[in-house]
Amino acid sequence: MLKKSLLIFFVIFLIATPVYAAAPTVKSLELSINMVWVMLGAVLVFFMHAGFAMVESGFTRSKNTLNILMKNFITISLAALLFFIVGYGIMFGTSAGSFVGVDGFLLSGVEDIGFFVFQAMFVATCATIISGAVAERIKLGSYVLIVAAMTAVIYPFVGHWIWQGDGWLTAIGFSDFAGSTVVHLTGAVGAVLVVLILGPRLGKYNGKKVNVIQGHNIPLGALGVFILWLGWFGFNGGSTLAADPSLVPMVIGTTLLSTSAALISSALYTKLRFKKVDASLSMNGVLGGLVGITAGCAEISLGGSIIVGIISGLVLVEGIRFLDTKLRIDDPVGAIAVHGICGIWGTLAVGLFSTSTGLFYGNGLPQLGIQATGVIAIIAWVSLTIGSFTYLLNKVSPIRVSEEEEISGLDFAEHGSNAYNFKDSLLDSDDMTTSRSIPLADRLNSDIPLVNAKKTS
Amino acid sequence: MLKKSLLIFFVIFLIATPVYAAAPTVKSLELSINMVWVMLGAVLVFFMHAGFAMVESGFTRSKNTLNILMKNFITISLAALLFFIVGYGIMFGTSAGSFVGVDGFLLSGVEDIGFFVFQAMFVATCATIISGAVAERIKLGSYVLIVAAMTAVIYPFVGHWIWQGDGWLTAIGFSDFAGSTVVHLTGAVGAVLVVLILGPRLGKYNGKKVNVIQGHNIPLGALGVFILWLGWFGFNGGSTLAADPSLVPMVIGTTLLSTSAALISSALYTKLRFKKVDASLSMNGVLGGLVGITAGCAEISLGGSIIVGIISGLVLVEGIRFLDTKLRIDDPVGAIAVHGICGIWGTLAVGLFSTSTGLFYGNGLPQLGIQATGVIAIIAWVSLTIGSFTYLLNKVSPIRVSEEEEISGLDFAEHGSNAYNFKDSLLDSDDMTTSRSIPLADRLNSDIPLVNAKKTS
Amino acid sequence: MLKKSLLIFFVIFLIATPVYAAAPTVKSLELSINMVWVMLGAVLVFFMHAGFAMVESGFTRSKNTLNILMKNFITISLAALLFFIVGYGIMFGTSAGSFVGVDGFLLSGVEDIGFFVFQAMFVATCATIISGAVAERIKLGSYVLIVAAMTAVIYPFVGHWIWQGDGWLTAIGFSDFAGSTVVHLTGAVGAVLVVLILGPRLGKYNGKKVNVIQGHNIPLGALGVFILWLGWFGFNGGSTLAADPSLVPMVIGTTLLSTSAALISSALYTKLRFKKVDASLSMNGVLGGLVGITAGCAEISLGGSIIVGIISGLVLVEGIRFLDTKLRIDDPVGAIAVHGICGIWGTLAVGLFSTSTGLFYGNGLPQLGIQATGVIAIIAWVSLTIGSFTYLLNKVSPIRVSEEEEISGLDFAEHGSNAYNFKDSLLDSDDMTTSRSIPLADRLNSDIPLVNAKKTS
Repeated sequence: MLKKSLLIFFVIFLIATPVYAAAPTVKSLELSINMVWVMLGAVLVFFMHAGFAMVESGFTRSKNTLNILMKNFITISLAALLFFIVGYGIMFGTSAGSFVGVDGFLLSGVEDIGFFVFQAMFVATCATIISGAVAERIKLGSYVLIVAAMTAVIYPFVGHWIWQGDGWLTAIGFSDFAGSTVVHLTGAVGAVLVVLILGPRLGKYNGKKVNVIQGHNIPLGALGVFILWLGWFGFNGGSTLAADPSLVPMVIGTTLLSTSAALISSALYTKLRFKKVDASLSMNGVLGGLVGITAGCAEISLGGSIIVGIISGLVLVEGIRFLDTKLRIDDPVGAIAVHGICGIWGTLAVGLFSTSTGLFYGNGLPQLGIQATGVIAIIAWVSLTIGSFTYLLNKVSPIRVSEEEEISGLDFAEHGSNAYNFKDSLLDSDDMTTSRSIPLADRLNSDIPLVNAKKTS
Repeated sequence: MLKKSLLIFFVIFLIATPVYAAAPTVKSLELSINMVWVMLGAVLVFFMHAGFAMVESGFTRSKNTLNILMKNFITISLAALLFFIVGYGIMFGTSAGSFVGVDGFLLSGVEDIGFFVFQAMFVATCATIISGAVAERIKLGSYVLIVAAMTAVIYPFVGHWIWQGDGWLTAIGFSDFAGSTVVHLTGAVGAVLVVLILGPRLGKYNGKKVNVIQGHNIPLGALGVFILWLGWFGFNGGSTLAADPSLVPMVIGTTLLSTSAALISSALYTKLRFKKVDASLSMNGVLGGLVGITAGCAEISLGGSIIVGIISGLVLVEGIRFLDTKLRIDDPVGAIAVHGICGIWGTLAVGLFSTSTGLFYGNGLPQLGIQATGVIAIIAWVSLTIGSFTYLLNKVSPIRVSEEEEISGLDFAEHGSNAYNFKDSLLDSDDMTTSRSIPLADRLNSDIPLVNAKKTS
Repeated sequence: MLKKSLLIFFVIFLIATPVYAAAPTVKSLELSINMVWVMLGAVLVFFMHAGFAMVESGFTRSKNTLNILMKNFITISLAALLFFIVGYGIMFGTSAGSFVGVDGFLLSGVEDIGFFVFQAMFVATCATIISGAVAERIKLGSYVLIVAAMTAVIYPFVGHWIWQGDGWLTAIGFSDFAGSTVVHLTGAVGAVLVVLILGPRLGKYNGKKVNVIQGHNIPLGALGVFILWLGWFGFNGGSTLAADPSLVPMVIGTTLLSTSAALISSALYTKLRFKKVDASLSMNGVLGGLVGITAGCAEISLGGSIIVGIISGLVLVEGIRFLDTKLRIDDPVGAIAVHGICGIWGTLAVGLFSTSTGLFYGNGLPQLGIQATGVIAIIAWVSLTIGSFTYLLNKVSPIRVSEEEEISGLDFAEHGSNAYNFKDSLLDSDDMTTSRSIPLADRLNSDIPLVNAKKTS
């Protein structure tokens, strides 16, 4: 009797003891290791926003640089906040009719905060794509409203249909592992619609002439491309949501090889087509290769990923030319071709190269048809929503800056300052100390450009 | 008998076999996973030093850029070495009177090298804060001595009181999870004292006028801000010291949301106050939001972190203005407001928003009082020590460069070179090849500025 | 009977259930955690290529920047593809005579994809070393062929001998934990041979004069150094191939302290020798400290690593001077000294400082002799192979660009564009919008330099 009582006491004691409760088990360790992997993915995806900021500012003119940097900071910040408040619920809440999530707003009832964090880093990506395409001519305030619409509503719907588990595109078998369609095509379609309403930059198209407006700091852009490539290992790799040794290295491997192949193919192709290895197009080729493998990174073989990448590189170069010279859609950084055209290609590539469902592995055309259906559905949804939203926005108040502001640059128009000032080190000057010193009051409350400070003080 | 002997033999054999000893257990795997998480945190914190270097050089003038870069390299290097030799012992050694550690110097007797590595990455952070505030006018040698004092002695004392476990501030219940006070306020107070002794830059204050001295490369600074934000996920997240799935994602989540809120609030506030979205202030808003959530990142809710961030952004903008125009403390990069004012705010915010001890969760004022006590104690300690140290240093040999050196720039004065040279690509030149070729002997042994190379060769 | 049947049914059911099969075990979790650590290492090593790109472009002239960026993108891409196709098999395939691997091409039969991914990130590193040394004068096409030879054949042989397990250098006891010799010396020897065939840049050596050709963007270079330092924690740390808590933190710790010591020693030494703290040499000191500890990072104590680092910093500075002024080997970024001289030093340092085999720990000279043997063998192998390859290449078609192209810059010659364009923000201009707008057809199909666009349009 005593022994039994003691035994019961000990059992209860052990259960009640926090130390015992906290002792690691195989199950708790699995949670830990998966969490570490997903958090690593999350911070890598976060860093992609630095990459986007560098790519977009490096490939545009220096008079619009502050503005682009600020747009990128605002995009990630606003997206994270709105996804917390409303987007997560729409995207991952309990499904109403396979169409929209209806709970989980403000994360109420949500237990897996790590999953939220990882997804929150993704959201801004689709909005940032727009940022590059509309650069150098959109009002900051209008852009902010478009970001809000995309990240709070439009993208979460797409995500619900494809990633929530009960969505209608999931139900028909649509496959997009890490987001060629969910993230990249969604962003690119948004970009097309806004650019159509916004129009091309001044001086871009003169009659029949298509002008190249050169980027101002390609090394910064190149760094951005490297950062994006790095971050993409987290984007694709983290999308496994688990530290699965049989899956994760394959995903990292396909991401590496597809992108490498795309760089080589776009570089070679520009050499053949234009007689020079075009640096900007090749760097966009890297991004094209990344987008192209994103949908299929977990179900395409290493060899298959190389073919996907080669095609991504070619499609990207011709895509940029086609949009620029035939459709005359002015996209300063090539974002629409990278994320849209390669996004479509990557989504369809699953239907061709998936080792489990692809045409080339003897599975016929069904998956390809499903992939095409998904692509069409997302193009329709995003066009309709962001198109009508931006149209109305533009009616209420034009979303484009004035011609005068565009010529002087958005940095001055929107932020009253400029991005660079190398005079101290580049030029000899008799009055180095004071040349750029202007009264604070003037800077903050007037329209005096800082580059002219010397003349005004 | 034989069986028993065999059994004993096997038992001994198994114990002696390294393979058996190395076989993973739940316990050993827990060590592994925690180690991986802390090492990930450590390398992310390391990378923050790249962020500081970019922020500090981007937001100052191009004639002082090499100098700032070198200060950042020296800071992390010297701090790591001194922390190994003496700092770790003071900070985490066995406590003498809850005041100072007295063993563990040169890591003797220390077993957890991973913990040392993580902490070593932290140390330099507090000294780097000073680097930004004293930029463009301090002698390199003087700065090095100040870094040594901060990282070898002053900071480790603070760390002992708050993080060693037996410190007197721990004993009274002071809470600073990842270092709003330990790291950031400590660095900022050091910065204030050194700046007070050093004085403002030439041309900063002319009579009643407060001049803005513009940074030279804001994209570089923006990249630095992104890198710091990235690294901070390791700074706060790694401070859990364990891959705890119930804690880590919350920490990453509060860090993300607080910072996002701070960016939005500072951007909006500058728009309202100055009619333009000020890019530099908004980017500093990001840093303010990071510092603000650092103390409470593990015990403030996601919603609470947003409020903490919003306030951080507002406090930061007004703090920079107040220090610059009212107190006339010339801090070229705004480091004192970011790390000092937001550091205080973040520390106090624990007393308000902590879900376990905060005022707003029905726990009354005690925690807030304790937090305020800690803040006052650290301000007093750092002011006293670094103030008297720098005062004496300045008496022995002025810590400020000559007026001539300041005007020509520290790059030339301290390093005999300059940071940029775009002539090859920006200007047409008949003699591109030779324009910047000067005899090595001249460069290394004389004072000939490279920018004038053409004239002298 | 029924009970027994039910029991059997359940046992079979449980075994057959995928969920049960996938349930984590201590063994599967060990695989997961090691995989996460190695993948973290892999992405950090990947990021080193961004670091190399920034260092190499920052420390050379702005007219060759696009070219250097493209070389870096091509290097990582081509290396990854060739390593997948052929290199991995040569390096890690079943050994034929301890000399070369003979299977595993296209990864056929290879199960550990994670190990491939990690190693694939390494490969490009040795080729990238050449990129820096031959900058500003090699034809892009020739460089690509040299990269192919290095990464597909020459480096994999070295790797087979030292890292495959059955190689002849492994057999004699040669120790190179993370690649001071395998990666860095191999790349540096390749660089020496190619540079000897290529010759110095125009204007570098005029009679007895040795000219300094200044880098154009040192902050970019400094960022590259920070990125390399960050990536190196993955390079050395990931080389453990397992999340071993007793080994990994030591490796990170020695890597941190050696590098810190090297920065301090090179900075101090340049101050003593040239009266100024030389920024470029000090930053190269960081890289020298990293290379120096790479071979011994897992078997040298923390204290020992500091001594290794101090010597690395000194050896680096004198090495650069010796190569530049005595041997007159024109290496624009100092890559040969960093990777070659510090690579040899690091390899030999194992024979001195290894706590298990080193001279200073009472183990006599044997290990030192073995290390020297390995160094000599690798120098001989790489010299012979890349030397004869490049010699023949140069016979077929000169690997050097024309004098005219070198003077105008490789960016224009190879890529038809230039890297920077700050006019919008730096200069006042009446026609900001159109100044750099030229017809796309002209740009892509002609030789019109964009910098002269205004004149031609």
